[in-house]
Amino acid sequence: MNFSSQLIEEAVQAFASLPGIGKKSALRMVLHLLKQEEKEVSLFTERIKEMRLKIKFCQTCFNVSDSEQCAICLQQSRRGTSICIVESIRELIAIESTQQYNGLYHVLGGLISPLDGIGPDDLKINQLLKRIEHEEANELIFALSPTLEGDTTTYYISKKLPKPIKITTLSRGVAFGGELEYADEMTLAKSLQNRISIEDL
Amino acid sequence: MNFSSQLIEEAVQAFASLPGIGKKSALRMVLHLLKQEEKEVSLFTERIKEMRLKIKFCQTCFNVSDSEQCAICLQQSRRGTSICIVESIRELIAIESTQQYNGLYHVLGGLISPLDGIGPDDLKINQLLKRIEHEEANELIFALSPTLEGDTTTYYISKKLPKPIKITTLSRGVAFGGELEYADEMTLAKSLQNRISIEDL
Repeated sequence: MNFSSQLIEEAVQAFASLPGIGKKSALRMVLHLLKQEEKEVSLFTERIKEMRLKIKFCQTCFNVSDSEQCAICLQQSRRGTSICIVESIRELIAIESTQQYNGLYHVLGGLISPLDGIGPDDLKINQLLKRIEHEEANELIFALSPTLEGDTTTYYISKKLPKPIKITTLSRGVAFGGELEYADEMTLAKSLQNRISIEDL
Repeated sequence: MNFSSQLIEEAVQAFASLPGIGKKSALRMVLHLLKQEEKEVSLFTERIKEMRLKIKFCQTCFNVSDSEQCAICLQQSRRGTSICIVESIRELIAIESTQQYNGLYHVLGGLISPLDGIGPDDLKINQLLKRIEHEEANELIFALSPTLEGDTTTYYISKKLPKPIKITTLSRGVAFGGELEYADEMTLAKSLQNRISIEDL
């Protein structure tokens, strides 16, 4: 694409560097901002810049935070008896959106993946083990992706626990609204094996 | 979605205000920028802000420009004998991308649309008529959308011309690679009426 303007081209390139955004979508965004007031565009960029410069990570659970402790850890009404272990804040937000969980979290910052050169020391695993030692939690909920890396991480942590503690993981099975014929064999086999009473549906 | 961080929430809202971006995509972008260096994020926002603050509109054709005259108008090798009339710079970029046109442009900034309260005076039509009067152009190419608004605008301008000049418009017909059975009746009828010799394909 030929933009006939260096300024437009650089702005398009900036947007196109974002995940899932191609040059056409990027151009659409740039033309949209071009129609906005200068003040509004300044506000737009300021919010993004501020977010990156001012964001902190919770010293306890490594969730994103506006202060040293995140809003979830600070919330008095949340039960500290369970810690839900997630890969990143994306999964934390997904679980929070269900409004079904009232415990604490621990954001690992990735999964153990030897192929990608990510070992246990690259993740917040030691910090998690210390939390288990010093906090009152009596249940660890592993909410990691059902992949080789997720299972490896779950296995590694479960072998390192400093004290006996109840361990659970998200149930696996066919998704709500999914077509049974398109479910993969592994999932179908497992959900047949771990079938549940229809009263628990 | 509950982001547990005001900073994240505001950045997500900023991205979600862009066309075609929902909250999930916006969050993905924010988390992507969160992983980048502060310097890179500053560069990202700076490029967008600069674009909005520094962009100019060409005094001749109203294309976006880094200076008073746009890169296309300044290009000596372009033939000034034809002016291609487009609705916005989006269409200009699309035509430039074909690399088939070597003339000049005129960006109207919209189409006549009484329903939306857009009349001839809201567009750069008078400036176009002045150009026709004073420039050497001998062909006007209407590259407007094949809609009621596009046709109205074409008709209006063609009736206002200050001197006789050749007028053409983009050919209409079935699109390359399109399925004939899905072409609308109007398009099919017109492309049958205006059928061309296979040597011109």
